[in-house]
Amino acid sequence: SAPPPLHPRVLRAFVCSLHLLGGGSAAPAPAPGRIRRERLGSGPASTALKRDRRDVASRHLLAPPRERTARPAGAARAVACPVSIPRRSLRPRQGEEVRIQGDEFWHMTRVLRLGINDRVELFDGAGGLVEGSIQKVDKGGSDVKLLEDARLIAPDGIQWHVYAAFGTLKGGRADWLVEKCTELGACSVTPLLTERCHTVAENRVDRLQRLVLAAVKQCQRIHGMLLNPPIQIADLQPVISQSKLAFVASAESPPLLSTLPKSCNEESGLLIVGPEGDFTEEEVNVLKASGAVPVGLGPCRLRVETATISLLSALMLWSDAHRQETLKCR
Amino acid sequence: SAPPPLHPRVLRAFVCSLHLLGGGSAAPAPAPGRIRRERLGSGPASTALKRDRRDVASRHLLAPPRERTARPAGAARAVACPVSIPRRSLRPRQGEEVRIQGDEFWHMTRVLRLGINDRVELFDGAGGLVEGSIQKVDKGGSDVKLLEDARLIAPDGIQWHVYAAFGTLKGGRADWLVEKCTELGACSVTPLLTERCHTVAENRVDRLQRLVLAAVKQCQRIHGMLLNPPIQIADLQPVISQSKLAFVASAESPPLLSTLPKSCNEESGLLIVGPEGDFTEEEVNVLKASGAVPVGLGPCRLRVETATISLLSALMLWSDAHRQETLKCR
Repeated sequence: SAPPPLHPRVLRAFVCSLHLLGGGSAAPAPAPGRIRRERLGSGPASTALKRDRRDVASRHLLAPPRERTARPAGAARAVACPVSIPRRSLRPRQGEEVRIQGDEFWHMTRVLRLGINDRVELFDGAGGLVEGSIQKVDKGGSDVKLLEDARLIAPDGIQWHVYAAFGTLKGGRADWLVEKCTELGACSVTPLLTERCHTVAENRVDRLQRLVLAAVKQCQRIHGMLLNPPIQIADLQPVISQSKLAFVASAESPPLLSTLPKSCNEESGLLIVGPEGDFTEEEVNVLKASGAVPVGLGPCRLRVETATISLLSALMLWSDAHRQETLKCR
Repeated sequence: SAPPPLHPRVLRAFVCSLHLLGGGSAAPAPAPGRIRRERLGSGPASTALKRDRRDVASRHLLAPPRERTARPAGAARAVACPVSIPRRSLRPRQGEEVRIQGDEFWHMTRVLRLGINDRVELFDGAGGLVEGSIQKVDKGGSDVKLLEDARLIAPDGIQWHVYAAFGTLKGGRADWLVEKCTELGACSVTPLLTERCHTVAENRVDRLQRLVLAAVKQCQRIHGMLLNPPIQIADLQPVISQSKLAFVASAESPPLLSTLPKSCNEESGLLIVGPEGDFTEEEVNVLKASGAVPVGLGPCRLRVETATISLLSALMLWSDAHRQETLKCR
């Protein structure tokens, strides 16, 4: 008989790619997880990242993990960490096996105490998603048998692209900004170069890229988040002109929620936030002339990362409400 | 002739209390700034706090600071840091002098390079606000002459009270939550004790209190933010029953922006967020029975602190939009 459906909030196991065939014992490709261990330093963000891996279990909405014994199918369990798997060319089909090793295997078996017959959802951060059932657990890894063909999920809802001038933020604040944008479902984040924030350190971009990957796995986003190279405001103009939903944070402007349209069929939108010290008047005029709508931040004075997350949250909640109403009307 | 009005976003100098008379050279009372230096450790949050003091100058919307010379009245300058001033009993009046020493004096003169005839706004985090002009700068401090009677500002807009189960969050996340709640204008933050988060460390509450004070000064809130002692859900019930705007974060619930009323004359509201692992079903039923409205978090899986800040941002932006429309209609 078919196993009961997974809990709607079941968590997922990240695999490098779902274009693969399982089985075999080929040497694993370098896992993003391993890079994370080797290169991240001991600063607050990376320590938080390491600690957070162990927090995943407690974040679940499911019951606390049980002991590591065989149990009947239908006991939905969860894993959310990267998997090193050799890449192949065909998308996996029902009945095939995927081998999970390394960091994710450790997390699955030691932290979450998953065992034989537990079900996991494998995702690869590029839209691939497939449900599987753990068949075997040995010292080096575990074999997961797929219960369905791997699916490619299309992005849903408005895709928000964030352009924020966070290149000169100190003390982990840029890390927070990128991590929270990932959690809140932004489609991409691009550092903005302005007169008052005209650089982004090179090693910072590398570090942020790894942070994005870790955050994607941690909040189990089906689709990854792009971290683009820095751009100038002048290069942003054509992007704004092509968009019908472009908002720029500006302290003395009308409130965001009054400015949002009542009905909207757009697929993507832009959010533009200035640096510490704000945009110059000239830059604001350039952005407005391209078509960006200035929106206020509310009554409080917000810092760059707070303004970004605050506006992104409101936009995300608005587009979700809008989508739910559209679904109801059908 | 009267000096021109201050820039609408001019920054402010924090003083311990505006119930004081200036002048004299009495030994300063212990400054919150000094306590901040002595007791805070070297963890990420406190290092960030120390670094942030130096960031304040770059956060301003005004031109970069100029050299320390006498300049004509009207050059609006800004200071935002605590001042140790002996407490007296009468609110200061126009023409009196307030002496600024210690951390804030250092910040004012060394970081922001303010000088004679520069104007500052003094605030005490308890509703007091007064504008003054720097008369004298010497080695130990500076004298600020008040240009008007000190005013007591009433709180404006909906007062949001946050109840979040953040007692067991690790790695600076609780600090981040409290700091961002302060920045976003929450009226109070109270740790919630639930089945899945049943403790709050004692030293954590002390530390968070100091963090709130530092954040109030940094984002220059006219009114402070209360950090209340932890409470149980059972004790929260009567509070919810008396409120007409109580929201509880719940993953599979209708979107927040669809649930907000079209018109609202409430003065305060509640936001309730569960712990890692979420509320138990029993707790959710108790909260709903008291009158809290469950609201969704959007399509993404959000962590405790992200969910809190995300919903608080949306509520704050909504009440600001609502207030602006009410002002327009008058």
